Amino acid sequence: MGASQKWVYGFGGGKTEGDASMKNLLGGKGANLAEMAGLDLPVPPGFTLTTEVCTAFNSNDKKFPDAVDAQVEKALKSLESKTGKGFGDAKNPLLVSVRSGARASMPGMMDTVLNLGLNDETAAGLAELSDNRRFALDSYRRFIQMYSNVVLDMEHYTFEDILENHKDNNGYYSDTEMTADNWAALIEDYKKAVKEELGQDFPQDPKDQLWGAIRAVFESWMNERAIVYRRLQDIPESWGTAVNVQAMVFGNMGDTSATGVAFTRDPSTGENTYYGEYLINAQGEDVVAGIRTPQTLTKSARENMGDNEPSMEEALPEVYAELADVFAKLEAHYRDMQDIEFTVERGKLWMLQTRTGKRTAKAALKIAVDMAAEGMVNEDEALLRVDPMSLDQLLHPTLDANASTDLIVTGLPASPGAAIGEVVFNSDEAEHLAKAGHKVILVRTETSPEDIHGMHAAQAIVTARGGMTSHAAVVARGMGTPCVCGASSLRIDYDESVFSVAGREVKKGEVITVDGASGKVFAGAVDMVQPELSGDFAKLMEWADRARTLGIRTNAETPADVETAKGFGAEGIGLCRTEHMFFEADRLAHFREMILAEDKTGRIAALEKILPVQREDFAAIFRIMEDRPCTIRLLDPPLHEFLPQGEADVEAVSAATGLSARQLMVRAKELHESNPMLGHRGCRLGISYPEIYEMQARAIFEAQAAVKDETGVDPIAEVMIPLVSSYKELEILKGRIEAVAKSVAEESGKAVNYKIGTMIELPRAALRAADIAKHAEFFSFGTNDLTQTTFGLSRDDASKFLPDYVAQGIMEKDPFVTIDQDGVGDLVQIATERGRKAKADLKLGICGEHGGDPASIDFCHRIGLNYVSCSPYRVPIARLAAGQAAIRAKSP
Amino acid sequence: MGASQKWVYGFGGGKTEGDASMKNLLGGKGANLAEMAGLDLPVPPGFTLTTEVCTAFNSNDKKFPDAVDAQVEKALKSLESKTGKGFGDAKNPLLVSVRSGARASMPGMMDTVLNLGLNDETAAGLAELSDNRRFALDSYRRFIQMYSNVVLDMEHYTFEDILENHKDNNGYYSDTEMTADNWAALIEDYKKAVKEELGQDFPQDPKDQLWGAIRAVFESWMNERAIVYRRLQDIPESWGTAVNVQAMVFGNMGDTSATGVAFTRDPSTGENTYYGEYLINAQGEDVVAGIRTPQTLTKSARENMGDNEPSMEEALPEVYAELADVFAKLEAHYRDMQDIEFTVERGKLWMLQTRTGKRTAKAALKIAVDMAAEGMVNEDEALLRVDPMSLDQLLHPTLDANASTDLIVTGLPASPGAAIGEVVFNSDEAEHLAKAGHKVILVRTETSPEDIHGMHAAQAIVTARGGMTSHAAVVARGMGTPCVCGASSLRIDYDESVFSVAGREVKKGEVITVDGASGKVFAGAVDMVQPELSGDFAKLMEWADRARTLGIRTNAETPADVETAKGFGAEGIGLCRTEHMFFEADRLAHFREMILAEDKTGRIAALEKILPVQREDFAAIFRIMEDRPCTIRLLDPPLHEFLPQGEADVEAVSAATGLSARQLMVRAKELHESNPMLGHRGCRLGISYPEIYEMQARAIFEAQAAVKDETGVDPIAEVMIPLVSSYKELEILKGRIEAVAKSVAEESGKAVNYKIGTMIELPRAALRAADIAKHAEFFSFGTNDLTQTTFGLSRDDASKFLPDYVAQGIMEKDPFVTIDQDGVGDLVQIATERGRKAKADLKLGICGEHGGDPASIDFCHRIGLNYVSCSPYRVPIARLAAGQAAIRAKSP
Repeated sequence: MGASQKWVYGFGGGKTEGDASMKNLLGGKGANLAEMAGLDLPVPPGFTLTTEVCTAFNSNDKKFPDAVDAQVEKALKSLESKTGKGFGDAKNPLLVSVRSGARASMPGMMDTVLNLGLNDETAAGLAELSDNRRFALDSYRRFIQMYSNVVLDMEHYTFEDILENHKDNNGYYSDTEMTADNWAALIEDYKKAVKEELGQDFPQDPKDQLWGAIRAVFESWMNERAIVYRRLQDIPESWGTAVNVQAMVFGNMGDTSATGVAFTRDPSTGENTYYGEYLINAQGEDVVAGIRTPQTLTKSARENMGDNEPSMEEALPEVYAELADVFAKLEAHYRDMQDIEFTVERGKLWMLQTRTGKRTAKAALKIAVDMAAEGMVNEDEALLRVDPMSLDQLLHPTLDANASTDLIVTGLPASPGAAIGEVVFNSDEAEHLAKAGHKVILVRTETSPEDIHGMHAAQAIVTARGGMTSHAAVVARGMGTPCVCGASSLRIDYDESVFSVAGREVKKGEVITVDGASGKVFAGAVDMVQPELSGDFAKLMEWADRARTLGIRTNAETPADVETAKGFGAEGIGLCRTEHMFFEADRLAHFREMILAEDKTGRIAALEKILPVQREDFAAIFRIMEDRPCTIRLLDPPLHEFLPQGEADVEAVSAATGLSARQLMVRAKELHESNPMLGHRGCRLGISYPEIYEMQARAIFEAQAAVKDETGVDPIAEVMIPLVSSYKELEILKGRIEAVAKSVAEESGKAVNYKIGTMIELPRAALRAADIAKHAEFFSFGTNDLTQTTFGLSRDDASKFLPDYVAQGIMEKDPFVTIDQDGVGDLVQIATERGRKAKADLKLGICGEHGGDPASIDFCHRIGLNYVSCSPYRVPIARLAAGQAAIRAKSP
Repeated sequence: MGASQKWVYGFGGGKTEGDASMKNLLGGKGANLAEMAGLDLPVPPGFTLTTEVCTAFNSNDKKFPDAVDAQVEKALKSLESKTGKGFGDAKNPLLVSVRSGARASMPGMMDTVLNLGLNDETAAGLAELSDNRRFALDSYRRFIQMYSNVVLDMEHYTFEDILENHKDNNGYYSDTEMTADNWAALIEDYKKAVKEELGQDFPQDPKDQLWGAIRAVFESWMNERAIVYRRLQDIPESWGTAVNVQAMVFGNMGDTSATGVAFTRDPSTGENTYYGEYLINAQGEDVVAGIRTPQTLTKSARENMGDNEPSMEEALPEVYAELADVFAKLEAHYRDMQDIEFTVERGKLWMLQTRTGKRTAKAALKIAVDMAAEGMVNEDEALLRVDPMSLDQLLHPTLDANASTDLIVTGLPASPGAAIGEVVFNSDEAEHLAKAGHKVILVRTETSPEDIHGMHAAQAIVTARGGMTSHAAVVARGMGTPCVCGASSLRIDYDESVFSVAGREVKKGEVITVDGASGKVFAGAVDMVQPELSGDFAKLMEWADRARTLGIRTNAETPADVETAKGFGAEGIGLCRTEHMFFEADRLAHFREMILAEDKTGRIAALEKILPVQREDFAAIFRIMEDRPCTIRLLDPPLHEFLPQGEADVEAVSAATGLSARQLMVRAKELHESNPMLGHRGCRLGISYPEIYEMQARAIFEAQAAVKDETGVDPIAEVMIPLVSSYKELEILKGRIEAVAKSVAEESGKAVNYKIGTMIELPRAALRAADIAKHAEFFSFGTNDLTQTTFGLSRDDASKFLPDYVAQGIMEKDPFVTIDQDGVGDLVQIATERGRKAKADLKLGICGEHGGDPASIDFCHRIGLNYVSCSPYRVPIARLAAGQAAIRAKSP
């Protein structure tokens, strides 16, 4: 942090010191402004305070490093010379915007101040200079309002109330009716309000204003909203934000001025058409805030939407043509779809921002495939462009076109996807109900950053106000949550918890269906259909399959799940949890009979009743999977999990078994465990009760023989023994299972195709992998339990303090979602090395839930596992993630 | 297992093929017979079938390797030529004994057959040859009886009943009254009984007899008693036993014949005097079985005991002198006290066995120190001679000489130590009551191998019959359990569950006190005193301290325990568990108030009430430990452990806190955890509730300042943070504790002497030791929890299946007693290496219960820990074990 460190980088108007590669230092916005300036695009000049200033500031008691002051001073001088204006110069005032810009986009989360540099004197100067007193005073009052709110921490409504009063007193309906004199009077009231509340005057010195704004941006990095957003988006606190100070340009200087936002392609569908909105005579905030309903960019869009207001293509044809050139230039330069902000000041186009545009999964898919077809990117690059997790949006059902529906209202199709849920009107309640297991749909007039938690909790979002780029729309698309925006005929009565559309009322708790793709909201639950996974999706999967070396299996045991997973491309079953089968009513009774039996004879008698049912369970799976390998885990959970819990259940079991409720209680007490996770389960049951695993092995092998007989296809079983901590357990159990296989083969006259392996889910198993590998044909890493034991952390109990841990930065991510590479991953790697050293052809897979998490899949690829196994709906995600991992591993 | 493998080794009478170094192959008995033969001591010739035969036999469906038959045949031929007798030769029959001999001594557990080779014809031959028909027929009937029992699996009592009938019919009282003709008649009845029960004749072919006996010995390696004994003694099944076939010699050939057992020093006290028993005209089994009361070896022993029967020194002075020479030769040769069996056949001494003698802890200590003084062994060797665990016997209280006592009976002082308990008369009941928490004393007429489990469960053992080398005495000394033997005036009525001595009755359940050192049994509970740890003990400890490099600390928190540990030589506290302090009534109320508080303010208010009490807890410890380091672990268990459990308790807390029972239940439910071992505990509490650790840190530092002020000695605190899984937890908590230290130092004006470190008790902590070491000044391995998490094994629940695991050989030892070096130990080693690499001077210790286990201490020494910490009574054990570890590590 020496005095020689460079804290401030200039851009535009000649010399530009940064470029797009410097995102970590300059933030996304700053780096892209520098990059655009470097491309000779029309960027208002400015300078960027680096993210390192933010880090230094926040870690040093909110003090700036010494050299910053001088460097800002110098940059300001340079800006004055580039613009030919003076900061605080009443004759020719330099006005600036001050905006945050972090490394990753954080829409709506950070604060912005516009028109900074205005005071009583420079406002008068601006009036003279622009020959537009109304514009100058309007700008001044906007600045006071924004600055007071963001920097001085006053409430927004204080100023809204004053404005409403002035309009009411004048009998005005809209802001546009306010005259220059009206604004002047309002400004006096604004200044009075500041003085009253803060006990001091609104700052008139532009330098004070500037430093206040810079501080406010840096401080906002640590505000509650920012912290929540970062937590949800996995953005480390250490990144910090940059601050961009940039000469103001004005979209509100009359009818040849405008402001707009645009995407170079449709971010919702991926179509290769410009997509955006603009407003004549407005500042940028007006478009994003959703206060005025914006107009379309292109003529065709206007026609499609049946809009009456002229498109930019029609209203400002020359500037539009220039803008289209910029779009092409930017997309070619960045080789990706861009999200752009621009302003037209008296017919001159200014670029205020470009960044890679957020998009829906569908759009991401289409853009990636299209750009590959256009030759803009190659296949590998295209593959890396699609976030695997986003595919989830495409895999779930959509509304059945043939379903009968009861339309309530239509708004803008802001974020695609269909969802059914109960209506709820505030975010706290949405979060609360969601935690209690309800599926909710958040209905708001508009959303703000304070609603983030509610939006996360909701199945879908509906707003009455705001356009396609409003807060609700942007955030919902980012989350992959269906959203209908700007359903303007919708009225909400928050007090009564009811919304109405043309007199029709829908109360809190009523079920509605939202279709984000069409912008429609229906009453009740509408029928859904499975998505078609063809076209772009199929092409992407084909590329992913070509790239990946990891096999993809699924964790499934019901025929429906197995069928779904196979449809999604699962190449085998990585984990069939046989205990799930025992919970079904017809067999639970027998299973309980087994548990409650007094001796081995009694247990065997009960198991014999389960055998045929279990055999059919496996046969059904083998029929679907044909010759794909099926890893079947033998009984894992402790027996007490199967005992009756409630009074009614106890009575029923008592009646069925002839045991008294008291006897049942005694047995339950005998089986009770202090720490069931670490108790009598997994292969420990197999050691204590050989007959259970022998029955299961018999069911597997007999099912194989039967299906082979029936279909001619030879099913492949991989019998998996859970919770092994020593090779001796495996050795003993393997011997017993082989004996069963031998006798089934003799009885059926058919050789059964099987392997025996184990789960590696205890630290000791990972450490002793060399011994264990000698007795195993495969390992499957059970990273759920391995995470629990490595951390000493019960998943069931961790929810009480894990949020504290993530909030305090102790854990960056939930280790049950993304594998802890440093600890759990170290054990997986140790086991991989030791296991392979002992047995070179040992097959290695993962069947914890991490098997469906892209970051974990990348790890699995890097350490050389053979396959990952995940839940059926994660299979396509895993295929894509595995392809991406292989591509990333190729590049240096 | 080729045909060329040597399965049989000959010894004695000229060529001897083995020696004492071959114990693993020949077993202890066989190796020592060979060694004695090699020393030209009078050993009856014979041969040994190796332990490898046993392993091959038991792992190959009880079939012998092919070459064994021929090798036995050859050895038998050689034996015939050495003895000049013929196996099955009616004129000059070779008779042999067949005995087991495992690597480790297993007294009473394995089976023996004597006089093998006798049949109708050879018995007649023996009669002629010995000119003693009665002797020959007595030998024959003993053989039939023993062989039928051991090899043919008939019940002992079948033969006892027949013998009793014959005596009754003849009006005899004792066996010695039986004439040759009587024996002849009895033999016919014995043979009839065999034929009746087994449907076949008693085998007449000596070869059949021999193979039957060999098989029986090998099979007995796998019998229930042997398996139980091995489990208790940690003897692996894979060792196997050897079989020794040896020419018979007879101690029952008249008054110049005798048989005896002897120790070269007193195995009870360690005194350097011969110690043993013999019987004129008897076979060896008669001495060990305790059926006849044997006579003393030496004149002085006879005089001391006030015995009337002549000692061997007096009765057979020449043979005695020869025996004394052998004793001296053997002790000098083996450089240790020997346990010897001998037989005198018509005035000729024969050595049948020598082995290192079992001894009490007191004797081991004295013999080691004496032998070092005698120059027989050096200091290091002497140190290795004492089993650290045996010291436990010396550390516990003995009877107070001044206590008033009520003597019931006096017997032989068979195994020293004093114990108080309830009388119980059978072993199953002893085990049962002990499990239920009772302290019991097993009172039996005599004990047999079937009583092992009861003897283990008992505090002490009392028998009415048997000498100092009887089963009860040998086993009790091995176990370190006090024992009084041969209290011959004691009569037991098993049916009525009462024993009586001269008309005085003591019923089952009455409390008695046993003093194994004096052989006295008292009514009621006699007062005890603490042992004096001086003399030999102090010398041994001095040697151990000189040898060891490991520091020895203690796990203690009460002043009494801390004082005890200091007296035993603890050099510091390795683990002070602060939560134990909260369970005391005066603070539990405040602690519960803290848990039940609604917010941080409420918690702080409650903690402020605990602060002064906790401060005084620490001050008391610092006063005792002076300038020895005290490692204090901050709160570890989950909060719900402190909540009231029963109804009465809930009501009391409800009254005290003003919370309703319902509110208490709600809070308890909130805090309930599925797996508390993996839950919200350890440093996780410190993260969630900073105020708890801050209060504890303040109490520690304030206590240091106060004690320094008061005593002038500067106490050393090592603040230990439990359950860390990531360096970030440690970093955050360390910062807070340092802040407390700083403010205490400012407030008190005294610098406090402290370090901050962590427990390594989670696999992740071990793996991330490098990161963690950067923030820690010490690591203490919490191997209890590390064992639980590494194995995924809850200590509380494991008892349900751990016995199965040990029985099936999956675990050789309970991993909570002796550290699992392969798994848990691997993690400890990884953490040691990674931690020291990051911080070379990192202090490393262990504070799990393994810190007091000799095998684990050896491991800790080898991997280079700085200290071990154990419970107070284990401190001397740990000192000795640490000394031994250092010595063992020195030798290659």
